[in-house]
Amino acid sequence: MAKDLLDKGSKRLGWAKTHMKVLAEVREELTAKKTLSGINIGMAVHVEAKTGMLALTLRDCGANVSLASCNPLSTDDSVVTALREQEGMDVHAKKGESDEEYYSNLNNVLDIKPDVVIDDGADLISLLHTKRKSESERLMGASEETTTGVNRLRIMADKGLLKFPIVAVNDARMKYLFDNRYGTGQSTMDGIMSATNILIAGKNFVVGGYGWCGRGIAMRAQGMGADVTVAEVDPVRAIEARLDGFKVAPMMEAVRSADFVVTVTSCKDVVAKEHLKVIKDGCILANAGHFDVEISRRDLDSLSKKKRQVREFVDEYVMEDGKKVYLLGEGRLINLVSGQGHPVEIMDLSFSLQALCAAYIVEEHKNLANEVYNVPKEIDEKVARMKLKLMGLGIDELSKEQMDYMSDWEEGT
Amino acid sequence: MAKDLLDKGSKRLGWAKTHMKVLAEVREELTAKKTLSGINIGMAVHVEAKTGMLALTLRDCGANVSLASCNPLSTDDSVVTALREQEGMDVHAKKGESDEEYYSNLNNVLDIKPDVVIDDGADLISLLHTKRKSESERLMGASEETTTGVNRLRIMADKGLLKFPIVAVNDARMKYLFDNRYGTGQSTMDGIMSATNILIAGKNFVVGGYGWCGRGIAMRAQGMGADVTVAEVDPVRAIEARLDGFKVAPMMEAVRSADFVVTVTSCKDVVAKEHLKVIKDGCILANAGHFDVEISRRDLDSLSKKKRQVREFVDEYVMEDGKKVYLLGEGRLINLVSGQGHPVEIMDLSFSLQALCAAYIVEEHKNLANEVYNVPKEIDEKVARMKLKLMGLGIDELSKEQMDYMSDWEEGT
Amino acid sequence: MAKDLLDKGSKRLGWAKTHMKVLAEVREELTAKKTLSGINIGMAVHVEAKTGMLALTLRDCGANVSLASCNPLSTDDSVVTALREQEGMDVHAKKGESDEEYYSNLNNVLDIKPDVVIDDGADLISLLHTKRKSESERLMGASEETTTGVNRLRIMADKGLLKFPIVAVNDARMKYLFDNRYGTGQSTMDGIMSATNILIAGKNFVVGGYGWCGRGIAMRAQGMGADVTVAEVDPVRAIEARLDGFKVAPMMEAVRSADFVVTVTSCKDVVAKEHLKVIKDGCILANAGHFDVEISRRDLDSLSKKKRQVREFVDEYVMEDGKKVYLLGEGRLINLVSGQGHPVEIMDLSFSLQALCAAYIVEEHKNLANEVYNVPKEIDEKVARMKLKLMGLGIDELSKEQMDYMSDWEEGT
Amino acid sequence: MAKDLLDKGSKRLGWAKTHMKVLAEVREELTAKKTLSGINIGMAVHVEAKTGMLALTLRDCGANVSLASCNPLSTDDSVVTALREQEGMDVHAKKGESDEEYYSNLNNVLDIKPDVVIDDGADLISLLHTKRKSESERLMGASEETTTGVNRLRIMADKGLLKFPIVAVNDARMKYLFDNRYGTGQSTMDGIMSATNILIAGKNFVVGGYGWCGRGIAMRAQGMGADVTVAEVDPVRAIEARLDGFKVAPMMEAVRSADFVVTVTSCKDVVAKEHLKVIKDGCILANAGHFDVEISRRDLDSLSKKKRQVREFVDEYVMEDGKKVYLLGEGRLINLVSGQGHPVEIMDLSFSLQALCAAYIVEEHKNLANEVYNVPKEIDEKVARMKLKLMGLGIDELSKEQMDYMSDWEEGT
Repeated sequence: MAKDLLDKGSKRLGWAKTHMKVLAEVREELTAKKTLSGINIGMAVHVEAKTGMLALTLRDCGANVSLASCNPLSTDDSVVTALREQEGMDVHAKKGESDEEYYSNLNNVLDIKPDVVIDDGADLISLLHTKRKSESERLMGASEETTTGVNRLRIMADKGLLKFPIVAVNDARMKYLFDNRYGTGQSTMDGIMSATNILIAGKNFVVGGYGWCGRGIAMRAQGMGADVTVAEVDPVRAIEARLDGFKVAPMMEAVRSADFVVTVTSCKDVVAKEHLKVIKDGCILANAGHFDVEISRRDLDSLSKKKRQVREFVDEYVMEDGKKVYLLGEGRLINLVSGQGHPVEIMDLSFSLQALCAAYIVEEHKNLANEVYNVPKEIDEKVARMKLKLMGLGIDELSKEQMDYMSDWEEGT
Repeated sequence: MAKDLLDKGSKRLGWAKTHMKVLAEVREELTAKKTLSGINIGMAVHVEAKTGMLALTLRDCGANVSLASCNPLSTDDSVVTALREQEGMDVHAKKGESDEEYYSNLNNVLDIKPDVVIDDGADLISLLHTKRKSESERLMGASEETTTGVNRLRIMADKGLLKFPIVAVNDARMKYLFDNRYGTGQSTMDGIMSATNILIAGKNFVVGGYGWCGRGIAMRAQGMGADVTVAEVDPVRAIEARLDGFKVAPMMEAVRSADFVVTVTSCKDVVAKEHLKVIKDGCILANAGHFDVEISRRDLDSLSKKKRQVREFVDEYVMEDGKKVYLLGEGRLINLVSGQGHPVEIMDLSFSLQALCAAYIVEEHKNLANEVYNVPKEIDEKVARMKLKLMGLGIDELSKEQMDYMSDWEEGT
Repeated sequence: MAKDLLDKGSKRLGWAKTHMKVLAEVREELTAKKTLSGINIGMAVHVEAKTGMLALTLRDCGANVSLASCNPLSTDDSVVTALREQEGMDVHAKKGESDEEYYSNLNNVLDIKPDVVIDDGADLISLLHTKRKSESERLMGASEETTTGVNRLRIMADKGLLKFPIVAVNDARMKYLFDNRYGTGQSTMDGIMSATNILIAGKNFVVGGYGWCGRGIAMRAQGMGADVTVAEVDPVRAIEARLDGFKVAPMMEAVRSADFVVTVTSCKDVVAKEHLKVIKDGCILANAGHFDVEISRRDLDSLSKKKRQVREFVDEYVMEDGKKVYLLGEGRLINLVSGQGHPVEIMDLSFSLQALCAAYIVEEHKNLANEVYNVPKEIDEKVARMKLKLMGLGIDELSKEQMDYMSDWEEGT
Repeated sequence: MAKDLLDKGSKRLGWAKTHMKVLAEVREELTAKKTLSGINIGMAVHVEAKTGMLALTLRDCGANVSLASCNPLSTDDSVVTALREQEGMDVHAKKGESDEEYYSNLNNVLDIKPDVVIDDGADLISLLHTKRKSESERLMGASEETTTGVNRLRIMADKGLLKFPIVAVNDARMKYLFDNRYGTGQSTMDGIMSATNILIAGKNFVVGGYGWCGRGIAMRAQGMGADVTVAEVDPVRAIEARLDGFKVAPMMEAVRSADFVVTVTSCKDVVAKEHLKVIKDGCILANAGHFDVEISRRDLDSLSKKKRQVREFVDEYVMEDGKKVYLLGEGRLINLVSGQGHPVEIMDLSFSLQALCAAYIVEEHKNLANEVYNVPKEIDEKVARMKLKLMGLGIDELSKEQMDYMSDWEEGT
């Protein structure tokens, strides 16, 4: 079995490597520049093949890397095994961690006294501002991968609480335009279909939240034939969703006829007591937002008279009136729980940004304040141009005359 | 482990049962009518949860059922275990059968001396016309589930070779319009995404064949963001594909820039030597047609210098010029090999037709010749009306005046 | 003004000619074969640039052609002027004919004692079975362009009433798959947008009827961003519409929230008294079916207290409760009334079939009974291959081995 | 004729009024507040029904309004007639103005000595910085409607040249997300279909520029069945276009197989000499960008041996090698030249912003510097909430707990 696991993980890493071609170019560049030589990097990410490749890449560039999971359920144990046994990586993660194990793993990562932290959801950075404050002294800076994490960090920055500079990798165009939208879109549909084997076409599919992730899910659910309804709190996004061809309704109304509800809002209690009381019998609930608070398990528990697992990753709750509701993956990130995370090529983009930003932090941390920084435009466009070239796609270049025209306000009708 | 397998299979059957609501109504009706009491039914199907439910339904209606697989790789062993150990069903199937085992299993099914045969691909019926001719005497008739099988049987009928009447369940509107199109569409995408974790969006995705299955795949691949090219042999379908917004090209041209090629033609050698010579480096090949002859493994073997499994269900072939090509699931039905087969509700429709057609064969076989029959319109519409009601959808009814108008040729401008 | 009209019509014919390239090839072929030399052809069609080109083509092939409109509102007067004054064609049509004028024009066409009739809606053929029976003696046969017309003629055939053979051009694959679906789809959206300048995106758009035409409209309305609901009478089509991603509801329910209702059913009173009572305030009604009976003007008149034209092609009805309903183009074919009919290239296909079928009738009428015939497969595929070539698209050819495989029932798993 | 024109224009204004319901609410509010009483407003816009309604609304709120066209070809003469004769508005515009007439009309508007200017393309504001500098003394500020205009004004602001504050209405979310995307998308397709009656489905449709406008066009062209290629200069947008399912290619490559090319870049010479040399025979060129410089008419003239109008709004250029190229609407905004401009409800949003921003300029100009300002968030969301309510759509409100959660960085896994 252990052999099987190692073999499986090894193959998964190999497959990821084959398809992470931008990262390969970044590796070559950073190896030559030696920017990361001897740098300690602590990572809290979803430990699977693609993040494994990021860790290996950073190590190949000369860094000392330690790795924990950023989510108790999202770890791919086969990859952990291969990273440890085949690559000798320092990995602290397993699928199905208790809260205690989860935090113990994060602490292990901090024990290496990182110069740079790569975080996903800001739990590691949060620790560095609370129980592990002392570790933050040495830090050059950290980068954050998610909308949820960046939100937390901007609040901290606004309150003047940040102890070191942050690079908001999530907010790079090459990140959120692709990872959040096309990545989440595909991997969420993949996760739901794998977990349920239920037909998507012709179903009422409710998406809670019409940010970049929500858009991706709505677009792909419609692409699979669903009749999509969007629930939003922002009036402009709500009208956008409607003009994109979706229905728009408050969640209280949407759940009444929902066959699927997927939450992806960064908020909590998006599906809670009041919704569960009126939800359609047989409705399938899944979450694609970072934390497992978007669908209230507490309310599901308190309103149901019976709960049992009816299929891997599917819990059936029998409500007091006999109605059944199905929760996928315990309300944790469905694309990681029953899917395989974002497609490889998407993470190739995000992680090329991460590697380049780690180098940027090392090079520039002395010039950075304790604030949240955007990814420099040059890094963003560099990744874009690498990817375009690998896709074999050409674009136009503005001529001198065109650039002049574009910067001339006098030429009108 | 055996316990785990039983539990997994049992849950899968339970999940299927929950979502096969049309079949539940059919079961109730046929049980009351007792049409199938004491009837021997031999089935060769993809043995997984949905076909399991069909077998259980037929048994619940009073039939004696024996079950084999119609494909050496498509069996779900957990369901086999649950059918055998929990339900006491007579099942002859396992995942990964040798050719010998495959045919031995089919023969076991025929040993029960079936009155009615339910076939998928016509291998069982074919046996009844060759090595097991004697068994065909007793048969009232058989039904066939697939385009491929019906094609074979129509050829036999045209040649006057049929020994018993056939009902072409595949050709019912409630079958091919849904199973072939939306079923194959979703399950093929699911199978490919599960097997590869590769991004679909922005990829050149080639579909070989624009029949009902091909349309479903093309539509869903586009729905996931792919740039789809269709290869066809029928000029009218080719123009249709183009006006549906897809590109159209001969396979020889399409493979040159293909990131994915999926075949679903009922024909053989759709991707063969000449295509492999010019195919794009890194191309992923999958088949969604009934038999594993659409992509030539023989030619892959002869043109490659190295072959290894790089991921579950993914074989890498290194061609002589160093180019790599990936074959999914050994070229067998990708939606069953790495997916979970068609969505439950789709099979609910197809198998409700199958159960009603089994009863029809029992009731009407004396009035049927040794030909291929369409499913009676009443059965087709009965299933449609059951499904509509369960979906909670209403339709209009023509008034007397409207019916008169529709049958009146004199009322013009 | 007359000069302007002539110039406009002449340009429109020229533009049509430029884009009707299949018809150009057919013209060349039929001219060489002289099949139509001296043949009298009577046509009742929507007289605009594309039908004008058909008439000119038939004349160029040697026929004597007389032309009337098949709809009182659909004539393009500029084209009539150009056909008459520039081409010397015998044309009996104007935009806005009274019923009397309409039938007088049809009778004028019959006065040439046609050998072959090309009809659109079957009004001309109907006359030949009622008031102008004597003219039917000489007829070799007729072809019919529309679903509505073919329906009428099949009823006549079933009752044994037909006096001459009919070729159902509508039922050719190269006709209904393209003209009815993509032609009606685009031209109906074009007609509605031109008539209203109203946003389609985010609107509740109801399509009455999910035949080939209805599918085209639903697909294109969704393509423009609408939230589409389909009303149907056929349960199978209703489920298809739902799995294509549309909502399905009875018309009585659909109209309550409809921003647009478009009928295309071949039936009458699809929107009538009961619907108008509950219809949404401000709803826009349009018809894309052949006859103007699908939306009941009689009921609109009787239920409204005020009617006025508020924009070209838009009549506002103020209902008794103050609610407003807008009827486009008096309920006549919206794609011809406020649009320009089907796109040129679509009619190129339909009219190439018509020209080849006229020749077929001349050549084969002695072998044909007084029944409704399908277009011979050779003609259908000939048009498809011509079009494919002109589109620059290639398709695959089956090899000998593949053809053998496809006709071999013995090769199984 | 004049009577007809007046009647037509009057109806068009009435139709616009019926569908501009947000503006009606704004009118009510501003009338009550009297902010615009006695204010002189000079407007340069596309003079048609919707801008007519904006002008009438501002007048109804107490302003003195003078109106010119911002484009020599985009005026609807019927609306001009109705505004002048029925409403007594001061309008200086006609369809088909010479350059001299165009600037004379702009000057007429400035003659009223405006307090506030509403501009579209920045020609009027440009005049105020060049030949009519003296008029800028009195100005409180101006608002600008387009991307092109805002680009020009930002360049001026960067150079410190601005003489008065500018509100960039274009950059409001309720403007560019809707007007630029869905408005341009629909109206461009409408304009092209009306001008050509050519089939969109199955055509190679090239969009130059993937900004908000380009996205709208690409989305709707695909929605009508086209195979869309995007040409871009920004590498990130290029990858986005690809993952949205479009092809991406440099313009030089794209034109070789293009059936349609639509430019919408804000740049010049997007289609110029080098492209015309290799462009596909029969290609149709249209521009949807603000100025008519995107497709080089100069290069079309110099490379062609013959030019003639072949249809209203369609000029045929016969190139020296015999190839034909068609230019729609002389390369001016196709959605206004052969279409009817953006759908009414879209302009309802943009013009509600304009009216509220005019009031904002009056109220706040003393607090504004000579810079380019974004529309205040309150105005943007106010319009969104008004529109949502009129659409009958509900959204969710965050609870106190949810707001706390969203602003709490400590709550993690």
